[in-house]
Parts: sequence; C-alpha cells; structure tokens
Amino acid sequence: MPSRASPEDLCRLLGLRHPIIQAPMAGVQGHELAAAASRAGALGSLPSATFSAEVLEAELQALTAALGARDGPGTALPWALNFFCHRPTDAQALQAEAAWCKAVTPWARQAGLPPPASAGAARAPFSAALADLIEPFRPPVVSFHFGLPAPDLLARVQAWGAKVLSSATTVEEAVWLQANGADAVIAQGWEAGGHRGHFLKPDLDLSGQAGLFALLPRIVAAVHIPVIAAGAIVNAASVRAALALGAAGVQAGTAFLCCPEARTSAVHRAALAGALPGVESDTAVTAAFTGRPARALVNRWVRESAAVQVHIPPFPLAAGALAGLRQAAEAAGQGDFSPLWAGQNTRACRTVPAAEVVRELAGGLNPSSTSRSLEPCA
Amino acid sequence: MPSRASPEDLCRLLGLRHPIIQAPMAGVQGHELAAAASRAGALGSLPSATFSAEVLEAELQALTAALGARDGPGTALPWALNFFCHRPTDAQALQAEAAWCKAVTPWARQAGLPPPASAGAARAPFSAALADLIEPFRPPVVSFHFGLPAPDLLARVQAWGAKVLSSATTVEEAVWLQANGADAVIAQGWEAGGHRGHFLKPDLDLSGQAGLFALLPRIVAAVHIPVIAAGAIVNAASVRAALALGAAGVQAGTAFLCCPEARTSAVHRAALAGALPGVESDTAVTAAFTGRPARALVNRWVRESAAVQVHIPPFPLAAGALAGLRQAAEAAGQGDFSPLWAGQNTRACRTVPAAEVVRELAGGLNPSSTSRSLEPCA
Repeated sequence: MPSRASPEDLCRLLGLRHPIIQAPMAGVQGHELAAAASRAGALGSLPSATFSAEVLEAELQALTAALGARDGPGTALPWALNFFCHRPTDAQALQAEAAWCKAVTPWARQAGLPPPASAGAARAPFSAALADLIEPFRPPVVSFHFGLPAPDLLARVQAWGAKVLSSATTVEEAVWLQANGADAVIAQGWEAGGHRGHFLKPDLDLSGQAGLFALLPRIVAAVHIPVIAAGAIVNAASVRAALALGAAGVQAGTAFLCCPEARTSAVHRAALAGALPGVESDTAVTAAFTGRPARALVNRWVRESAAVQVHIPPFPLAAGALAGLRQAAEAAGQGDFSPLWAGQNTRACRTVPAAEVVRELAGGLNPSSTSRSLEPCA
Repeated sequence: MPSRASPEDLCRLLGLRHPIIQAPMAGVQGHELAAAASRAGALGSLPSATFSAEVLEAELQALTAALGARDGPGTALPWALNFFCHRPTDAQALQAEAAWCKAVTPWARQAGLPPPASAGAARAPFSAALADLIEPFRPPVVSFHFGLPAPDLLARVQAWGAKVLSSATTVEEAVWLQANGADAVIAQGWEAGGHRGHFLKPDLDLSGQAGLFALLPRIVAAVHIPVIAAGAIVNAASVRAALALGAAGVQAGTAFLCCPEARTSAVHRAALAGALPGVESDTAVTAAFTGRPARALVNRWVRESAAVQVHIPPFPLAAGALAGLRQAAEAAGQGDFSPLWAGQNTRACRTVPAAEVVRELAGGLNPSSTSRSLEPCA
C-alpha cells in the first residue's frame, strides 16, 4: 500500500499554513475571495474560466498585489489559478449550439425576449496564449479541471515551479493524474457543487461517481501523492471526517459562497438561504447550463430543461443561449435561469468573512476542538 | 438546534456493547451472521424479506437459541429483525409482471430457457400475520425499510418493548420517521449497497439523494433521536469519520458480505473480489432486479436491462422473471443475472469472521486507535 501523505506534507508542498483550499468558482468570485482565503492561511484560488484575457490580467495584478510583492522567493502568500481543460470549440459544436438556441427559443418567447443567438464559447481551455499571459505572474499553484493540459503546456507551467492540482471523480482518474504529473489530487465526491471534473470518459458514468465516504479512502489507497477531499466540506466536523478517511487536506467551495468577498449574485445568495421562490433546497447534476454536468440548486431551468436535454451542445456552449433569459430573470429578482451552483450541504453557508470560514474549517485540524454552531446564509 | 444523541445513548437504547449494526441483507444471510455479529457486541440483524413463514420461524428459533435463553429480562444478547414496508401486490402489479416476463423473454431464449412465467410476489410486506409469527420471539429491535408499517401494526410491535429503526434517504424522511415513532433513524447515504430506503416519494428523486458527507450532518441537525450512519462504513476510519459528522452509531453491510457466516453465493463473493468476468468493480443503482432502486455491482443485467426498463414491474415482482436466468448463470459460475448487492466501497470486504469485522469497526470508536490494514476478499 502506498504511504499516505499527511496534512503537513500538503502544507509543505503548497507553502500553506492550513491544508485548506478555497475552491475556484468561476462566475461567483474574483481576486477578493482568493486574497482573503490566502491571507487567512488557506490557498485562495482564482478561477479563470469566465474572464477575458484583459480581465484575467487585471485580476492577477490585483491578487498578487494583495498577497505581497514578489521581491524574492517565499515573500508572498501562495495562491492558485484555475483553468478548464476542455476540447476547444469546433464547427460541429457551433452547429449544435445553433440547434440549442432553437430549443431554448420557446422559453425566450414566453419571457418576451428575442430568440437566443449563437454566442460562441465564453470559456476558453488552457492554451499557449493563456500560458503567455500568466507566466509573468508565476502562479505558485495551478489547478485544472477536466484533466490536465497537453504535456508540453503542462511542462511549461511546471518549469515555472508551479505545483499542479487536478480533480478526480474516480480512482482511475486519480491514478491517471498522478502518472501524468499532478503534484496532488482533489478527490471530488458526488456531493460537490459546480462542474464534475470527470475526464477519462466523455460522458458522466453515474456508476463510477461515488460519494466522498467511498471515493476518498479508495483514492487514498491508490496513490501516493497528497489527496484533497472535496464535496460537502463545510465546517470543522467535515474536515475532521475527511482527515479520518485519509485526506491530506480539503477543498471547500459552497461554504465560501455567502462571504462578502465573493461576487455571488443576490439571487444566488437568496437561493442558498432557501429564500428564493421556485428554487428547491436540493441540488441536481445537470448539463443544461453549460454543456457539462454540474451540481446546482434545483430551479426552473433544471426542471424544465429535461424536455430539451437531447439538444444540449458541448461545453461550454450551452451558456450563451441562456444569457438573455438569465439576465431578465435576475433583473426581476428571480433565479429561474441562473446556474445556482451548490454542493449537497448548503446548510452551512454563512454570511461571514472568508477568514472566518477558514478559521472554522481549520478548527477540524485539531482533533480536540469542537465545531462552532452554524448560522444560516441570509 | 436539537441536542445530539451520543454513541452511549444508542448503546443504552438498544442494549449494545458497540453502537454498530450489522445491516440486514436479504438473500445473502440468515441467523448465522446475525448471531455472530450480536455475539461480538454489535446488533446482528435477521432480514425477513426472502424467507417463507416456516423458514423465518426456524431462523428465529436458531437465532434466539444462539443468543441465549430468554429466561429473564436482560439475559439474552440483543438482535434485530428486519421487514420491508412496501405496498402489497395487486392485480395491476401482476399484469405489469406479465409484461415484464415478455420483456425478459429474449434473454431467456438466448440462454436456451423457456419464457419466464409470472411468479407472484416473493417478498411480503410486514403484516398482522407476520406480527403473529414473530410475537413469541419478542424481538428486542425491529428495523423497517421503505418507511414504517401502519400505525396499529407499529403500535403492536412497540407494545412488546421492541425498539424501532428505519432508514431515511433525505432529511424530510428522517423528520417523518421521528414524528411517526422511530426510536432511531438510519441515515442511508448514496454510497449504501442494496435497496434505497426512500418512501416519501414513490420514485427515486435523484436530486434528493445525498452522499453521506452531506446527508448525515443534515439529518443530525434536524432530529433529536440517535442517527445511525450507513453507506461505505467499512472499517475503523469510516466509523471515526461518521462519528465526526455526528452519528451516534453506524450500520455496515458490504463489510460483512465475505464473512464465512454470510450465505453470500460463490459468484457474489468472486464479484466482490473483482474476480468475476463481466462484472465491474463499480456499482449502480437499478430497479431491474426487484422493481425498486437498489445498488449492485454492474453486471450484464445492469447494463442490458436499460433497454427494457420501461417494463420493470412494481417491487418485488421484477425478481421472479429473472430467477431461471440467474440460476442457470450461477450454475455455470457466472453472475450475469444475479443481484450482486454492494455499496460503493467494496475494497474492504474481507474473508474474516464477522467478529473480526465488528472488532475492526469498533476500533473507530476509540479516537486514538489506528486502522488495521485490509486484505482483499477472496
């Protein structure tokens, strides 16, 4: 059996005070949340997926400025930059997007909006151009979702000294990531909010998607690199449970969604608090928002898109056709067409600074501490 | 927030040495496994579902004899008897079974077998007649799956002094069980093997089915009766994790499947060891074996039944049509049509006496103990 990496190993690898990662959450956060998490001793993450090159550069400027001048090795706090590794959009995908726009048209018409037009891909996969853009910032950690970039691109990132993380939804994916150069692997339990990170099979094979109680110890037994637990990690108690199952650290996303430093929309915050009409407290995994399966609170589009799911185009093209509907609904205070990303335990979302969430999670690293009581998101 | 029941509370409630329940597993065990688990200080469970009245009575005789003469209060070791609470089969269900037999016929023909004939219900729900049968044995604990029996029947069981357990797959179900008389609730995580215990909705609503990391703390926060964690509880580490998330105890099933005291078939044991051709190491939830969703290793019938799933009849009628196919395949050493029940972590199935599994699990009750290394099932 491979020797198990400890929380101390993970802290040493990533230069962290606490083996806690603030999950990159495209669309609901920028540098503010990442900086706050890193300042509190965790690893703050900046998601790149929904930023243009210009905005990404500005975010990186702001984040690195907040975390200290890099005037020598070891003088700045660590942070992570996150990219998706999906297949670039091709002509066939654009055709599928056009058909998707037609499928979404009845909803637009009902809302008094023009038929949605093809918008093209808003989320770009990691590329040489993005590597050029980020190289001057020398990210200490780069995390990927949907596998890893091509070997030459990965080698370039690693040549800067960046540590590389990626998510595994199966034991096979964890073993593949270790064999292909990841420095640590994120075990993404079925409970996790946002996009499933599966990549070895194009479709989500439900039979392979295990809850964290089963996935985490199986991955820990299969690899020797540190394993980071993700999915329903919301407080000190869940950190304690993850460590008991062999995790070297944890990644938490949903728990940060109601922090003031997050850019989570008002409707999203209301939905997490259980206070948005038409949105359930349960979550579902659906590809109807972006083209790839992702976990969100059940709202009108999760329910009604079942009727048009055969028309869902490849990631990330599903989002464009919904933009108008989403904007109109949100302007009216409704979340009917918004991707209300959330994990299976939303009860622990608290409207507190990110540092307080890190403090709560870090409490689970000390076996004798007791969990604080949680207040609802509001 | 309700006060949390402790492991000591659960032990006191059920008269146990360890807050550990050997899960009732219809079809793969009888009194031998239940007796061994109870003798080791856990709560052994006898599943009633697949036994005729005569066999059930004989099993109860054997179990109570093994656990000590009941010649006074407190002289025998505790044990549990488990029943399903499904709707009795009606004429419409029998019609659906006839259509199911037709749907299964191509597989029978391919195997050189006659077309399957309607077999009627093999699993009877709890009833007054069953209450008459078990009353003389005064079961210390009765556990139910798919909710609870009608109030008059439940009252009769409770009048004997029996403690009542049932499974919840959602927070709503846990609250319902507490309000309707359950003494403790089993939080059945998505990871769990065998039949899902959902009962408030007839169909399995996937969006409500959470992994144990999310389900367990949410149920603990919602009820005041003891909460028992089920799903991927396979060793000391998982017990430690469950307690960290607020469980008062655990229920383990898969971990006992390879014990010599279980009646698990040779093909089932081989499949759990990953040594049966055509059977994957992953599990899936399917209704194609019995009519209700249940988690099993992915074998030929799990894969191929997708083509005929619209014809699946109500529980438990799907099983009859498959009996001939299953028998013929098992006689040839194949598990193509067998329900190979298993949870999402099968790696911890060990070919050791049940007492050794209880000892391993009990190790997780002591925070300072370390987990034993696990050997594969063989």
